[in-house]
Amino acid sequence: MNVGVLGTGITKFGERWDQGLRELLLDAQLKALKDANVEANDLDALYTGNMGGGPLSGQLHIGAMATENLNIDKPSVRVEGACASGSLALRQGILAIEAGEAEIVLVSGVEKMTDVSTEQVTTMLMGAGDEEIDGFTGLTFPGLYALLAKFYMNKFPKLTRDLLAEVSVKNHFHGTKNDYAQFRKEITIDTVKNATMVADPLTLFDCSPITDGAASIILTSEAKAKELGAKVSIIGSGLGTDSLSLARRKSLTRIDAAYSAARRAYKQAGITVDQISFAEVHDCFTIAEIYAVEALGFAKEGEGYKLYENKDTYFDGKTPINTSGGLKACGHPVGATGVKQAIEATMQLSGKAKGRQVTDAEIGVTHNVGGSGGTAAVHVFKKVRD
Amino acid sequence: MNVGVLGTGITKFGERWDQGLRELLLDAQLKALKDANVEANDLDALYTGNMGGGPLSGQLHIGAMATENLNIDKPSVRVEGACASGSLALRQGILAIEAGEAEIVLVSGVEKMTDVSTEQVTTMLMGAGDEEIDGFTGLTFPGLYALLAKFYMNKFPKLTRDLLAEVSVKNHFHGTKNDYAQFRKEITIDTVKNATMVADPLTLFDCSPITDGAASIILTSEAKAKELGAKVSIIGSGLGTDSLSLARRKSLTRIDAAYSAARRAYKQAGITVDQISFAEVHDCFTIAEIYAVEALGFAKEGEGYKLYENKDTYFDGKTPINTSGGLKACGHPVGATGVKQAIEATMQLSGKAKGRQVTDAEIGVTHNVGGSGGTAAVHVFKKVRD
Repeated sequence: MNVGVLGTGITKFGERWDQGLRELLLDAQLKALKDANVEANDLDALYTGNMGGGPLSGQLHIGAMATENLNIDKPSVRVEGACASGSLALRQGILAIEAGEAEIVLVSGVEKMTDVSTEQVTTMLMGAGDEEIDGFTGLTFPGLYALLAKFYMNKFPKLTRDLLAEVSVKNHFHGTKNDYAQFRKEITIDTVKNATMVADPLTLFDCSPITDGAASIILTSEAKAKELGAKVSIIGSGLGTDSLSLARRKSLTRIDAAYSAARRAYKQAGITVDQISFAEVHDCFTIAEIYAVEALGFAKEGEGYKLYENKDTYFDGKTPINTSGGLKACGHPVGATGVKQAIEATMQLSGKAKGRQVTDAEIGVTHNVGGSGGTAAVHVFKKVRD
Repeated sequence: MNVGVLGTGITKFGERWDQGLRELLLDAQLKALKDANVEANDLDALYTGNMGGGPLSGQLHIGAMATENLNIDKPSVRVEGACASGSLALRQGILAIEAGEAEIVLVSGVEKMTDVSTEQVTTMLMGAGDEEIDGFTGLTFPGLYALLAKFYMNKFPKLTRDLLAEVSVKNHFHGTKNDYAQFRKEITIDTVKNATMVADPLTLFDCSPITDGAASIILTSEAKAKELGAKVSIIGSGLGTDSLSLARRKSLTRIDAAYSAARRAYKQAGITVDQISFAEVHDCFTIAEIYAVEALGFAKEGEGYKLYENKDTYFDGKTPINTSGGLKACGHPVGATGVKQAIEATMQLSGKAKGRQVTDAEIGVTHNVGGSGGTAAVHVFKKVRD
């Protein structure tokens, strides 16, 4: 697999009272087209990831919105896989190019979450789990991940409360370096531990926020990428699935779908984990980042804590994780998150991640999870050598 | 393009109080696997079309449900484009094969609509239009299509009330021949004209019903299809888009996206309209079938009425349209409809449409519309010669 990245565009993430679903999407689309120096009419296909448009805004059919925004009549499809929707859109964009059906594709992700109550958002998000098991019994996503954290930390007590909090501290630090991040202030381990309890052991600062935002990326074929001098290419795409409900998982100390996705993506890319310069991972809750670094192979199961003992996961550490600030600090507009991860990978590999630049970055991966692990997508990005 | 059809499965369409979203999907999936003689573990990818799972059932993330149903860990994605969701899933399945990422793909569509009030369903369906224009002003889909009917019949008065009613009469007749159709009784022009008015000029019998149902189809590569002796192949896939709202269309007497989709699909298939033996089209309302036969090229704009003067659109007529009973009589579980159309095309081309079989069927097309024409998908199916 070899698909080039021609350009990217992203909105400021946050509480965007100034823009609706359509305007956020348009803003990211136009920025990406400008960055790629591509006319809307040159696009052969569009894919847009969105999770909650129906329940939150009464707006489905966002594929047609994506083309209407640009006043074009092109194949355009909305893709949804809960919080992995953005990466699924990315994957479908890649496949359209690989199929020879499209040469230039605009992939976007968008979510408008702050126009409704937190209760409505929490209910919508439970659509990522099993409505008839998890939802019916009153579980919410903080509750599900709290159960995972309890289970994991009971089995692997070396992941202490302080080390778990380090995930959030590090991601908030990275957020201070990122212009489009929702939260841009440093915090301490005590900030995390002393914050309002959401679902034991997870406090407010263990949880990613509710966020509006959109992100777009323009992909092209290997040949066209060479012609236009693209600096970054995507060389692997892996997708794994598992049960919607935690109740039906084989193991609760790992997210199997993410192991599958990583294995498939690395195989396709022909890489091993030691070649990876950095990763953008799905830290919807601090505990999720621990599962992520293990699934990606940076640590064995139960040993993810080791990466957080010595600041290894900071942008200038051995294994930089979530240099964008992650879902925690950058914000988590769910449909946009997977595309934002791809943008961060692109920025790092093209040397544009000012203030948080990973030195000599050659290969980066993104890791995006839907629900509590019903879907996981991993993509491998590579710097194109001049 | 050449993708083979290995098997199909479909549930009875109707008010399915006995099955939920998951069970309907599972039923269609298992039937298709059995029909294709394929093991779940042999699948390389799954695509599932669904529109209203979020707003109606609180269940998003249906890609993971599709694999969980079969106890497999495979790439699996939910696709949504309002009432065209099923055809979009079909298209993504085709692209995955064309991309060389999958050899055997299970494409499904599912919708569970009868567990909630008609008002909730009508509100959800408005997510297919522009929520900020159409939805905000109180329009519903019967209202939108009534506006189209008024506009069209004012400009083209040769489409009389009686000829418009003929669409429904013919589709109900076909429904009597189809085991899985929701409505299986013949009606007359008077039945349509004397029914409860829904939105002038459309009465209850001009409108497709609210339906539960699921449909699955298994696709494979050209090489594998040859090896396994597949009887039907898909040789063209066209997708067009336009504005979500009618207010922003160039013309109201045609659905431009469907013209684009047909032109693209025919071009890819290398066919002209005179080679087409039959078509399954999107008759969400009777007027929509008139727009459909014109977009597909069976009649010029404004002359679609001619096909309804002499029973040409019956299964044994010159231009058979909606031999399944269409959305009107077969029922319209929105995410499943596009896949059901593909199944009807497959049945016709493999000589299995008992009681409604089109003689010497060689090429069939499906035409699936999202919203009032924001998305349209056309697929071309061909009988494989022995």
